[in-house]
Amino acid sequence: MSRPALRVALLGCGSVGSQVARLLVEQRADLAARVGAPLELAGIAVRRPQLVRDVPFDRSLFTTDAAALVTRPDVDVVVELIGGIEPARGLILSALEHGASVVTANKALLAEDGASLFAAAEKATRDLYFEAAVAGAIPILRPLRESLAGDRVTRVIGIVNGTTNFILDKMDTSGSGFSESLEEAQALGYAEADPTADIEGFDAAAKAAILASLAFHSRVTAADVYREGISEVTAMDVASAKSMNRVVKLLAICDLVEDSHGRSVCVRVHPAMLPRSHPLANVNGAFNAVFVESEAAGQLMFYGPGAGGAPTASAVLGDLVTVARNRLQDVRGAGESTYAQLEIRDMGDTPTRYHVAIDVDDRAGVLASVAQAFARHDVSIQTVRQEGRGRDAQLVVVTHTAPDSALSATVEELRRMDIVRDVISVMRVEGEAEA
Amino acid sequence: MSRPALRVALLGCGSVGSQVARLLVEQRADLAARVGAPLELAGIAVRRPQLVRDVPFDRSLFTTDAAALVTRPDVDVVVELIGGIEPARGLILSALEHGASVVTANKALLAEDGASLFAAAEKATRDLYFEAAVAGAIPILRPLRESLAGDRVTRVIGIVNGTTNFILDKMDTSGSGFSESLEEAQALGYAEADPTADIEGFDAAAKAAILASLAFHSRVTAADVYREGISEVTAMDVASAKSMNRVVKLLAICDLVEDSHGRSVCVRVHPAMLPRSHPLANVNGAFNAVFVESEAAGQLMFYGPGAGGAPTASAVLGDLVTVARNRLQDVRGAGESTYAQLEIRDMGDTPTRYHVAIDVDDRAGVLASVAQAFARHDVSIQTVRQEGRGRDAQLVVVTHTAPDSALSATVEELRRMDIVRDVISVMRVEGEAEA
Repeated sequence: MSRPALRVALLGCGSVGSQVARLLVEQRADLAARVGAPLELAGIAVRRPQLVRDVPFDRSLFTTDAAALVTRPDVDVVVELIGGIEPARGLILSALEHGASVVTANKALLAEDGASLFAAAEKATRDLYFEAAVAGAIPILRPLRESLAGDRVTRVIGIVNGTTNFILDKMDTSGSGFSESLEEAQALGYAEADPTADIEGFDAAAKAAILASLAFHSRVTAADVYREGISEVTAMDVASAKSMNRVVKLLAICDLVEDSHGRSVCVRVHPAMLPRSHPLANVNGAFNAVFVESEAAGQLMFYGPGAGGAPTASAVLGDLVTVARNRLQDVRGAGESTYAQLEIRDMGDTPTRYHVAIDVDDRAGVLASVAQAFARHDVSIQTVRQEGRGRDAQLVVVTHTAPDSALSATVEELRRMDIVRDVISVMRVEGEAEA
Repeated sequence: MSRPALRVALLGCGSVGSQVARLLVEQRADLAARVGAPLELAGIAVRRPQLVRDVPFDRSLFTTDAAALVTRPDVDVVVELIGGIEPARGLILSALEHGASVVTANKALLAEDGASLFAAAEKATRDLYFEAAVAGAIPILRPLRESLAGDRVTRVIGIVNGTTNFILDKMDTSGSGFSESLEEAQALGYAEADPTADIEGFDAAAKAAILASLAFHSRVTAADVYREGISEVTAMDVASAKSMNRVVKLLAICDLVEDSHGRSVCVRVHPAMLPRSHPLANVNGAFNAVFVESEAAGQLMFYGPGAGGAPTASAVLGDLVTVARNRLQDVRGAGESTYAQLEIRDMGDTPTRYHVAIDVDDRAGVLASVAQAFARHDVSIQTVRQEGRGRDAQLVVVTHTAPDSALSATVEELRRMDIVRDVISVMRVEGEAEA
């Protein structure tokens, strides 16, 4: 191999960074053959080098000065794995300005301010790749960006957060409540001490924004994503789903909506009931899966580990090989594609379906009154099931598709009705054909 | 868009070609935005233009002279969809020589003589892309080639032929025999009048060769693939699998084997029993799915429609967008990667496991004699189950892993034993851990 080595700077050496460093060393020969030149570690920026143990490389590579590392003229590619908004944004912008290409796994930053990163990459004629930002090792961004580039994607629906999937799975199999299941996830290392980003859906919303941008060639930021987490999901919700042969999952849903107003995009993250026969219903534990529907290809599914040091490092290295090959050829891969400039649809205008379980008085005319409440909001009912009798009578209503605001207004009205003792469970339904 | 159009020549206008043409016309604006320049049809070569009806483009694009079309100086990309070895090979070589990039779905040609095509592309500094050659619309080649380029793939196992999957599925659900199920597949259009390429595994073997080449960075041709079709699979085999909670699938299996002799590759296509809990066991009908195991990423699965005009056209257009973008930038994507140059392991030396059901005399010592036969070939038994009693006594043996030749020699010996009335079912077992 006569080509001079390409030099890689690592920002961060935690669970993902240390695996990236390990693979760079262990698979040095294979990587060199695939890139066309060796990949060499130029430096590793960490806050406290003394805390990083058992490294398969010279410790002199460590530096605490990330800002200086990314501007070094001998650095060809910067791999950013520190996460969060700052200092990550400043470091990436500086790296691009100083001529390095960038590989990042930073979903929060991409979803909040991808635009300025892409603009900087464009201006510097350098690559910005980020496969590891969504669904860990599962190759999903590249297929959306490249394999389906000749098709029209109409929907992306996925389980993209392993922590919440583990918790909901636990609630489903054991019947336990949310807090108890969260504690177990924390004990097993599937949830962090402060689990807010996961359980309130912020992590999934960032990923949904990135998926929607690529799928629909339009800019979608985290602020555009309607978001509900799983902290309000009750054992009763899960049981109610179970009684209807459904399962509760936290879904990231990106829809291309086409109606009389033209095309628009709606992107949302919320718990929803799926039929147990749906392929996503069987994605268990900390696994991730993404379902893609497109006009020509039909339905595709991508499944694999959604997190973890080595799987995420695999995605980082895949990008690194591409970016390094591009550097050798002095070209860029595809940049940001936002030509479609579609409007973001409000959640209230988004067509959804509801599953509503209510505890009602056991007397004549109750069903008629409930049905009228739905009718007043132009919501049509698909099925009503009565469970139990007398004091325990419960109605489970599944609606047809209606604007989400009409559905939530109906639920508000139900809550105020005298004959309704309690609204036991309200949840959106996804993934089944309307009969 | 001020860039001049890139001109595309289509060879073939059957179920895939006509969909490619339709999408080129219908999605003209989106494609132009994604490529950076419009894509224009330069010509369509078909043998009998009068047989092609309802085309969304000017009929003057039709020509019967494919050889002239591919050499036209105004053609930037040739899309080859006629299949088979000749004239496809000559046309692709001529197209590359005359400066066009090539997108093809021709698995048979790539698996038989990919080397000369890749060499011609290299020499011409043009692209040769072929996502549509394996598993229809499922993006699997690009993830192997690019997303996993920094990882080490150790196994690819997939259902890559929809016809045989439909037939085996039918046999499993209805209990019917092979011939009957094949006839039904033919009646429904899932199998061709001459079904040899599908049912004897030639189609799957070509795809396995392509998958193995990309996964292991080593050249694997169709001739290197051990191949058994499904025409010998009996209703008895399917029932025997069912009784053990397994299902019979035609699998394409690519293994990276590492032992004292170093690394080698073994690639095979044969029917095998899978546990019903395995994700591939639930891939039904004409769907395809590919499971990939790699060192860092772990297990990934890709699932979707394995054939059909529109899905395959989606894959062709994804390649077309990439190839066209490369033309605009005057660069090439990754070419053939065969640096690893691994040896191909004989099927006889390949570690496999067998499920053997035998009809035996009902007398003392039978089990001991059978066990001795296995032991004489150094094959260790994982489980033996006796089904039925008296005249109907049946033994079902599942072995541990052993070289395939030792397993087949054991079966030969069983066939010759006096106490063995009949060997009812012999099939390899895949996808389960050895207890």
